[in-house]
This record gives sequence, structure tokens and C-alpha cells, in this order.
Amino acid sequence: MLPVTATNPPFRITRASHVSLFVTDLGASRDFYRDVIGLVVTDEDRDVVHFRGLEEAAHHSLTLVRRADGPLADRVGFRVETDEDIDRAAHWFAANDVPHRRVEKDHQGPTIQFADGVGTHLEITSSMDVVDRKMQRFDEFHAGAPQRLDHFQVVTHDVQGATDWWARLGMRMSEYTAKDGTEELWGSWMEVKGNTHDLVFTNGRGPRLHHFAFTVPDAGKLIDAADVAGALGFGEEIDRGPGRHGISNALFLYLRDPDQHRIELFTTHYQFIDLETPPIRWDVSDPRRAQLWGMPASARWFFEASAFPEETVHEPLLTATPATLEDYLQLH
Amino acid sequence: MLPVTATNPPFRITRASHVSLFVTDLGASRDFYRDVIGLVVTDEDRDVVHFRGLEEAAHHSLTLVRRADGPLADRVGFRVETDEDIDRAAHWFAANDVPHRRVEKDHQGPTIQFADGVGTHLEITSSMDVVDRKMQRFDEFHAGAPQRLDHFQVVTHDVQGATDWWARLGMRMSEYTAKDGTEELWGSWMEVKGNTHDLVFTNGRGPRLHHFAFTVPDAGKLIDAADVAGALGFGEEIDRGPGRHGISNALFLYLRDPDQHRIELFTTHYQFIDLETPPIRWDVSDPRRAQLWGMPASARWFFEASAFPEETVHEPLLTATPATLEDYLQLH
Amino acid sequence: MLPVTATNPPFRITRASHVSLFVTDLGASRDFYRDVIGLVVTDEDRDVVHFRGLEEAAHHSLTLVRRADGPLADRVGFRVETDEDIDRAAHWFAANDVPHRRVEKDHQGPTIQFADGVGTHLEITSSMDVVDRKMQRFDEFHAGAPQRLDHFQVVTHDVQGATDWWARLGMRMSEYTAKDGTEELWGSWMEVKGNTHDLVFTNGRGPRLHHFAFTVPDAGKLIDAADVAGALGFGEEIDRGPGRHGISNALFLYLRDPDQHRIELFTTHYQFIDLETPPIRWDVSDPRRAQLWGMPASARWFFEASAFPEETVHEPLLTATPATLEDYLQLH
Amino acid sequence: MLPVTATNPPFRITRASHVSLFVTDLGASRDFYRDVIGLVVTDEDRDVVHFRGLEEAAHHSLTLVRRADGPLADRVGFRVETDEDIDRAAHWFAANDVPHRRVEKDHQGPTIQFADGVGTHLEITSSMDVVDRKMQRFDEFHAGAPQRLDHFQVVTHDVQGATDWWARLGMRMSEYTAKDGTEELWGSWMEVKGNTHDLVFTNGRGPRLHHFAFTVPDAGKLIDAADVAGALGFGEEIDRGPGRHGISNALFLYLRDPDQHRIELFTTHYQFIDLETPPIRWDVSDPRRAQLWGMPASARWFFEASAFPEETVHEPLLTATPATLEDYLQLH
Repeated sequence: MLPVTATNPPFRITRASHVSLFVTDLGASRDFYRDVIGLVVTDEDRDVVHFRGLEEAAHHSLTLVRRADGPLADRVGFRVETDEDIDRAAHWFAANDVPHRRVEKDHQGPTIQFADGVGTHLEITSSMDVVDRKMQRFDEFHAGAPQRLDHFQVVTHDVQGATDWWARLGMRMSEYTAKDGTEELWGSWMEVKGNTHDLVFTNGRGPRLHHFAFTVPDAGKLIDAADVAGALGFGEEIDRGPGRHGISNALFLYLRDPDQHRIELFTTHYQFIDLETPPIRWDVSDPRRAQLWGMPASARWFFEASAFPEETVHEPLLTATPATLEDYLQLH
Repeated sequence: MLPVTATNPPFRITRASHVSLFVTDLGASRDFYRDVIGLVVTDEDRDVVHFRGLEEAAHHSLTLVRRADGPLADRVGFRVETDEDIDRAAHWFAANDVPHRRVEKDHQGPTIQFADGVGTHLEITSSMDVVDRKMQRFDEFHAGAPQRLDHFQVVTHDVQGATDWWARLGMRMSEYTAKDGTEELWGSWMEVKGNTHDLVFTNGRGPRLHHFAFTVPDAGKLIDAADVAGALGFGEEIDRGPGRHGISNALFLYLRDPDQHRIELFTTHYQFIDLETPPIRWDVSDPRRAQLWGMPASARWFFEASAFPEETVHEPLLTATPATLEDYLQLH
Repeated sequence: MLPVTATNPPFRITRASHVSLFVTDLGASRDFYRDVIGLVVTDEDRDVVHFRGLEEAAHHSLTLVRRADGPLADRVGFRVETDEDIDRAAHWFAANDVPHRRVEKDHQGPTIQFADGVGTHLEITSSMDVVDRKMQRFDEFHAGAPQRLDHFQVVTHDVQGATDWWARLGMRMSEYTAKDGTEELWGSWMEVKGNTHDLVFTNGRGPRLHHFAFTVPDAGKLIDAADVAGALGFGEEIDRGPGRHGISNALFLYLRDPDQHRIELFTTHYQFIDLETPPIRWDVSDPRRAQLWGMPASARWFFEASAFPEETVHEPLLTATPATLEDYLQLH
Repeated sequence: MLPVTATNPPFRITRASHVSLFVTDLGASRDFYRDVIGLVVTDEDRDVVHFRGLEEAAHHSLTLVRRADGPLADRVGFRVETDEDIDRAAHWFAANDVPHRRVEKDHQGPTIQFADGVGTHLEITSSMDVVDRKMQRFDEFHAGAPQRLDHFQVVTHDVQGATDWWARLGMRMSEYTAKDGTEELWGSWMEVKGNTHDLVFTNGRGPRLHHFAFTVPDAGKLIDAADVAGALGFGEEIDRGPGRHGISNALFLYLRDPDQHRIELFTTHYQFIDLETPPIRWDVSDPRRAQLWGMPASARWFFEASAFPEETVHEPLLTATPATLEDYLQLH
């Protein structure tokens, strides 16, 4: 059943904002995001590197944290509008038994960390240190020239549960996949900032972070990103694309970092603001949902994702026979 | 003095939505917007043609209306979130002596027409008929492949007054131009949808509609638009561009239609959501505000715009010596 | 052993020029090349359709011929400089026991058909009817906007033999693949017009036409081509790409027509004129020769090609173990 | 009268190859061509900097030479096919009273310097040191990512004389401008390498080098070049473009270096090989010859060019009234 989005959510989330990853070789990962992807290093020290996209005035949208014991996702971050929204969120989390805690984070305003209904590790903050937008330093553009963080995709064992949980907070579904002839949700694209998605849930073993996505200025820059990856020896770290998603209309390219965290670069999402516009439904068996064109995604694109520390990964509630799943994934 | 944006506006405007123009030769103008610009004709009859951008699900974002007595702008339109916002707007307009009237418009939900504090003719509506998004009918893309209406620019005699008026309704300034060393506003870029602007006011004889703008997917499509204009004999109807605005970072191209109404095609505005980010100030004498690069705009780009019917055009409150003005406009 | 190109060839070939294909459903194939690929129909009748690229002044570069008994390649064509070169060619073919015959072809000057040393069906002509270049009719550009025919790739059982045969006619090798540590030729890129290739031979069951290639203006148009293919239901007829070849540096996209003939669209070959520049060697085991980046090619890209009528297909002289071949082809 | 190109020229020129410029501030000029334009520095010392395009295997295509007394062009260079062509050229120059001398140049094979019939300073060489093509070092691409030198444009007092002189050497006219209703040549586009031009002569005070041109990969990179120029403070050194030439179909951008030498970056010339294709004629009064679209060129684009040392500049043989000239140049 499709969720009904709260028009008066308990606090106002404004956008997907930032992501933090644990990495095993901080130097190698910094080089990857700076040289292969083209992100801007805002600052770095022995244990942490903060990056932002070229147009971003916020201090960081990607943070790498050194951690010896393997490639895990730390948490994904959203913005709320004001400090009061942080207070309202704390109140609502408490009232709804959502595990959460206030934390102090460098370069961020008031911040709360929490887990959503399916175990995704998150935080919200109401502000960040303001830094220079680099969007007119074209002489510093490199590779795909990523402009800003746009959204996250999370694999979850319970897409319906996750979708309902976030709809209460004002997230609105723009597109979804459902088992043919049913409303059994296999994937849910949800947004709060007026384009197609800030947060996506897809069916599988979860919670795990499938990818985070940055915009690039255009198709030419997407090809530049692939070319630079190829030139620097990361050509085989493209695990999907270039291709065109049916869902969201993105022209996409996915790359794996040295710890196999996955970043998407993309263009051409569309505006999604007017309330009378219904979400677009795709049958899960429709291959065009995944790609209007493009060579098949690799199996690792479908099955690999980054777990969160100490969070149990659940088997999906919805299952398919192996043959049907292969069909869904177009793996053959 | 910079305006303080109302965080709890009396009604919720969501985006720049649609524009209506009076044209003297409906067939010629329809051909222009369909064949030279690449907009989609949603429907047309003897007196009216409705267009939309390729990604738009709303029935129309540009309407041409046949009218014998000359090329005037009819009005620009915004969306509000819900029908209740229309009621709230009516109440607020009445309470604040804003001239307004409810009207019935085909293909639109409840609609109110009004004039803002500087005489701009406007309307707001809460919904439109939903039609197919054409964004994946790439076989029908043509010329610049314009995706959606993005913003309006209005010439006004009183930029400060206009800016204050709209700030009360929740519009927020992203960038502005001011006379060097002062806060004397010469131009104001205001937004409500989370990118750099929905509505721009610049200093001059007004109110007059300077242009309305559609997004195109990328730089390549902007060049395609110019090439198609050239091939169809409209090469000299480009009155500015291609070039890069300092303000808003747009890569832009401006064209004049057969009645000399002006349309902008552009890419690469940036996201503007976080409240801690201050507006960017540009001295009016700084040539980089207008163009980081690009051949000089034509004089007609600076001085020509479309008046509204029966609305008095006022001389600007702020003036400059002719020599200074030439400097500001880089006309030499 | 690398061939020594004749600096005074017996007649002067100037460029790859045209290709003729047998098709089983002429209407379906015409629609494909016109609507999905974007070629210009020069003329057509019940049995034959002539196409050209948008910049081409020659009457045809692709000809489709109706034929009931299956999808075969007819022949590939080259230009020679003058009518005298046709006479010289006839003389040389006779002197060297090359099977050939003079033919009358509509829209072509003096023409000779022949088979090269490995059985490829070819023809040469010295001129064609001159028609309008459409390169500035940007309003008629569609899909990838293919500009001109550039080269052919032929699968042959004897790459060394084919290479030697053409070197005597003045073709020069720009790049080649050889078995690691040897000069055993697995692929040969040969040119006469000053860029990387007019004619390519690769090792396999042959002679068969692997593909013919048209240039597109840029990366954006390559993506447009894929998008239009997707929109018109031909997304799965892309059997390789987009990707970047190591050899020749092409950004490429391959599509199959309704009879499974293969067309390549590409950009960014490089100039190859100066005699002091040696050919670039790639080990056949080097995956970067095939792709600097890009998802794996389909198996059908490697194994399917169009035979010529009544021409025996030979098993390749060079072979590899199945495992090695899989390695070479990166099929796993 | 149109020239008849020699089909058996006395020696074989293969392409426009390299240009040498005198500059007053070697460091500033090196920074410009490396950082603003994106050329590769092959080597440099206190007095000379050699550059090449990203795809070029030849040691240099642009050489800057320090010289105190002002911004002069040194000479433009062409390639001949073999050392024997150098000998044949020497013989022909002697037989035809062409001022010339053999010189030793670092990194070049046998070289002859000479002046053509209208005083242009030139040299020919048969080879250069071979260096790495950088075309697949996408990580080093910058600004417009210029790939290779393509052609030169020279202002001459005698376009007909210059054209006749070069036709004898095998150069072939692809396009030309002539006074309306006459064959009075105002501009001549001549080629030897199979695209639209290697050498252009236009009417005016000459001989002076108007510009040299490098290819860029596509429209996106042309915009990148402009953006980088803008970001580095060279936005006003664009003295024409972006725009689309009618002649040659180039999408163009012209920039001035710190000594006001002019470089063109462009895409999309077309193939010009077949002998049956006549040159395209443009009336000099036809504004589409110069631009299918684009803002007017600056006056300095029309009137400024780089003289050669100690070479007399002649007034043009063909003149027009000032008003007509303004029309031709579209300066108003």
C-alpha cells in the first residue's frame, strides 16, 4: 500500500546532506575521491578527511574516517531547516521510541544521531560551517566535476516499513517498483527537496548503504569521469553504466572506491514538487525500470553494499525464486 | 537594506510555474516555440496555444494568447502548495489591499490573479491537469530540448520595494547587486524552490517582463538550440549569449520570439536551501556579475522588455549618469 | 611481421566510402537507420534505400538492398582519387590475379568490384553524384546526428595475410594487437585518409563484416543516440558501449539493426599522418587495448558478424585455448 | 578566377603542422597556453617553450620565443611527406625564385624556411622527434583539452595571388568568399589534409597572422575553455564566440594571448577529400558566411593580427567603402 506523506511533519527535513564512511587506507581513499572523482578537500587530518562538491557552501558532504576493521558505512545525514527542528526531532524521537542521541560534531550545528525504522544509521543537523562555493573556479574542475550530494540508496529487508517510516516525516514518494499486479513494494524513491529523490530503499539484505550520489554538470562530464577513472587505473571500478535509468531518468555512472563503497555520478533528474502529480509505478519485472539502455549491470552492483557497524543485517521479507530474481536483475 | 524573509509566510508558494503572453501572429509564435525552442504543444485552438517543457507533468508552463494590439506580456504564474493556500492568499490579499480576483482557468485548479507591490501581473494556482512527462521520449527531443520552466525576470522601477514585498511571502534572496559601497539594490534574485531564483527584479523602467527561462539538459543542448535557431533563420534573434553569468552561475542563451518576447535557455544553477548561507553580493560596477565571459550583450537585451496591458510603466527610482550606466552595462 | 606500406601504391585509394547490406525487411531497416540512427535518406525505391551522413556530399555511404534469403553483407566500398586510378586498379588486379569486374552502378562513377586476399567483398569507385551537405540543417539533426562514414571492421581467418595485401595498396598500420611477446598479428588497424583507420582486420571466422562506423559530433550526441534507441525500443540492440577503446581512442557505441548488422557510432579518433610515427602495439592479453573503461561487451559482439554471399568462411589460422580466449575477450 | 589545384605538385605537403610566435613575457605566455588553453609543455628553457596538443606525437606544434621588441609572429610550419620532398622543395623554390634557406632546427628533420608569394613567413619539415601522445591521459586534460593544431589564417593584401601560389603546391580550395556577382576573391579556405582547411587567406592589410587553430574534442570542452578563461581572468580576452561559422561549419572560440596573438579553439569541420565536390561559394555580403549565429565579433577580431618581422605590410588590393565594409563585417 502506498504511504500517505505527512503534510505537517513533526520536524522539517530539507535535503540529503552528507555521508560518512569508514575506510581502511585513508590516503588511498582521499586520493580516489579527490583525483578520480574530483571532489574538493575542505580539510583533512590524520584520521578524517572532509570533502564537498564544487558548488557546495556547506563544509562537508562526504567524510572519510580511518578505521582499521573494515569497510563499513558510518552514517548518512540530512538537513533540517532550523535549530528548532532539531528540538522537535528530539521530542518526536523520544515520543516514538526512536533510538537517538544528541552529539557535538565539528563544523556542524546541533546534531542528532538516530536509526530509522529499518536500522539505517543517520544523523540530522540544522547547519554547517559556511565555506566558499567553488562552482566558478572552473580552473579547479577535475574529472566529473561533481557539484553536490543529491541522495542515498539503502538496501533494506523491509521496503514497505522503511517507506512508511519516512512518509510520516514528510518524505514523498516520486517513483516505486512493485511486484507485477500487486502493491508489494520492492523499491521506493522518496524525496523532500523537490527533485526525484533524497532517499531510496530497495529490497534485499539490509540495512546496508548501496550508494550515495553526486550530481555532475552534464553528459560530457560523466564521460570525463569515466575517462579519468580509466586513465588512473580505476576503469574496472565502474560497476554499472554509463546508462539511463528508467526510474528517475538519471544518466548514471557508478564507481567503487578502494574499500568498495559505491558512489554514483549522474545527471538529469527531474523536478517533483506539485502535489497533484502521482508517483510513477514500475513493475519489478519491467527491464526498462532499471535501464532504458545500457550494458547489463555487474552482479556486484546488485549484491554488494556497505553494512553499518554493529547493526544486524536481515534477510529480505520479500523473496523471489532465483530464476525470477535473475530476470528482475537482468543478470543473464 | 536586505529584506528579512518570512519563515512563516501567509501562504506557501512552491515555485515559478507558468507564463502567458499576448502575441500578434499565433501561428508564427507557435512555430517558434515548437520548432526553434523545442517546447511540447499540449493543446491549441484558434486563439490559444499551451506548451510545456519535456519533463513537465503540468498541463502548461507557457501559454500564447492571440491579441491584435501588440506584443504585451499577460501575466506570470506561481504555484502554491494546496487549495487551502489559495484561500489563505485571498485572505491575505484582502487584508493587505492587494488588488486581486479569483478566476476560473481551464486546466488549472483554484486560481487568483493579482498585482504585486510594483505592478507585476501575476496569478497563483494550486494545481493543474496532469499530463505525460515526455522526458523519456528522447526521439521527440528537438533543438535545446527545454525541460521545465524555472524563473522569471521583471524590470521594475523599485527593486527594493519589490524585494521587500516578496520577502514577506517567503521568497529568499540568493544573490543581489548593489551600488558600490552601499546597500542600494539594483537587482535581486529571489527563490522559493531551492535553487537560485524563481523571480528576479532588476532596475529600470517597469514593470515589464524581461524574460522567462527554461532549463536545458546541458551545454551541448544549449549549442544545439543556437544551431537550430541559426538553421531556421533565427540566428539574429539571439540577443545575448552563449555566456556565463557571474550571478547564479548560469550558462545562458537568450532568444527573442516573433513579437520580441524574450526566452532564456540555461543550465547549471546551483542548489540554495540551507538557511545559514548568506546571499552573494555583487557590486553593480563589477563586470563579472553579468558575465564571467561572453561577447557583450546587445543594447536591446538591456533596454527592451514586454509591458503588461494597462499597467503604467514608471521611471526607475535609482538612476545613474549615462556614462556610468554604459559602464554598468558594458555597452562599449 | 609488420608490413611495409607501399609509398607508391599501384593506384591511389583515398578513403573508406560506402557499404551495402542485404536486408530482409526493407521498411523496418530503413526506419532503423533513419529514425534510430539519424542518417539521411538520399533516395529510395521498392528494393533499395540509399543513405548518407549529415555532412556528406556524396550520394550514399550506406545502401540497403532487399533480399529474401537472409541478412548478409553485400560489399564495402572505397574511393580512389581519379578515373585513371580505376584503370590502374583494373590493370593491377589483372596482373595480380585478383578476381574483379567493372560494373555500372547508379550514382557512381567508374566502379570495379573485387575480393581482397582474404575474401572480403569490395568495390572501388572514383566519384559519386554530388548532393547537398546537410551539416548546417541542424533542425533536421536527429538521434546521434551521424556525420560521415569512417571505417569498416572485417573478421578474417588471416590477419597477417589481409594486412600484407592492403599494405601493398598503400594502407598504413596505425595500431595493432599481437600475441604477447610475439609479432603474431591478432588485429590490424589500417588507414589511408589520415586518421586511425579506414579498414580493420581482427582474428576469427571470416571473412565477415563485423561493423561499419559513422562519426558523431561529440559525446553528448553519442548519449543522445543511446537515448533515442532506448525510447524507440532498441535499447537492447546496443551490444557494446558506451565505452572507450584503448585502440584508436574511440568513444564508442555499437548497435544492431533489425537483421543484426552492426553499426558503430563513435567520436575522437586522432590524426595519423606523419611517417615517423610508429604504429602502437597492444598485447592481445592487455584488457586496456579493448577498453580503458566500460561494462563488458556482450558475447554476441565478439562472435556475431555478417557473412558475404557465397563466400566460404574459414576457421582462423591463429587460435587460443578457450580459457585464454575468454581472457582475451574479457567475457567473464 | 578560381585556381586549378596541381594534382602533381612539385613536392608533397601533408598538413599544417606548427607555429612559432615571438612573445615579450615568456613566463606569462607559457602560463596562458598551459593553464588557460590546456596545451602540453613538451620542453622549455630560458628562451623557448615548446607545446603540443594532447593527441600529438610530434614534439611541438606551438613554439614561443622570447623577444624584447614586441609581439610578432615568427613563422608558420607545414609538414612534407619525406626528406625527398624537402629536396624537391629546395629545387622548386630555387627554380621559381622563392626566397628560402635550409636551417637546422632542434627536434625537427630537414627544414626549409621560405616566404610565399604574399610574404607569409613559413617553414616546412619532413619529421619531428616523436613523443608520447597524451590523448589517453584524461587525468591531465585541462580547460579545452586541445588535441592538435589544425590550420592557420593569414591576412593578405592579395587573396587571389596567395591562392594561386598555393594551388600550384597542391592546396585545394574548399570554400571561398567573393564579392557579390563576381569571382573577386575576398577569402580563400585551402586544404591539403582532407578536412576543410590547412591555410586560409582573407583580405586586408598583410601579410599578418590572424590566428592559428587547435581542435577541441567537443562543444562541452569549448565551453570548458571559456569557463576556465573566465575563472583565470581572461574572459575579456575572448574576442569572438562561441558561435558557428557558416564557412567550414566550425563551432568556434577565439582568445588573445598576453601579447595579443590569437588562438582559435573549434570543433566540427567536415571531411573534404573527393575531387568531384566543388568548393562552396559565399557572397561576401552574406552574413551567414561568418556566423550562422553568435553575438557580433569585436572590431579587434577583424582588424588586429600579428605581423612578421621585417616584412612590409601592404594595403589590400581589394577595397570597399567604409559603409560596405561595416556591412561585410557586421560591426554595427
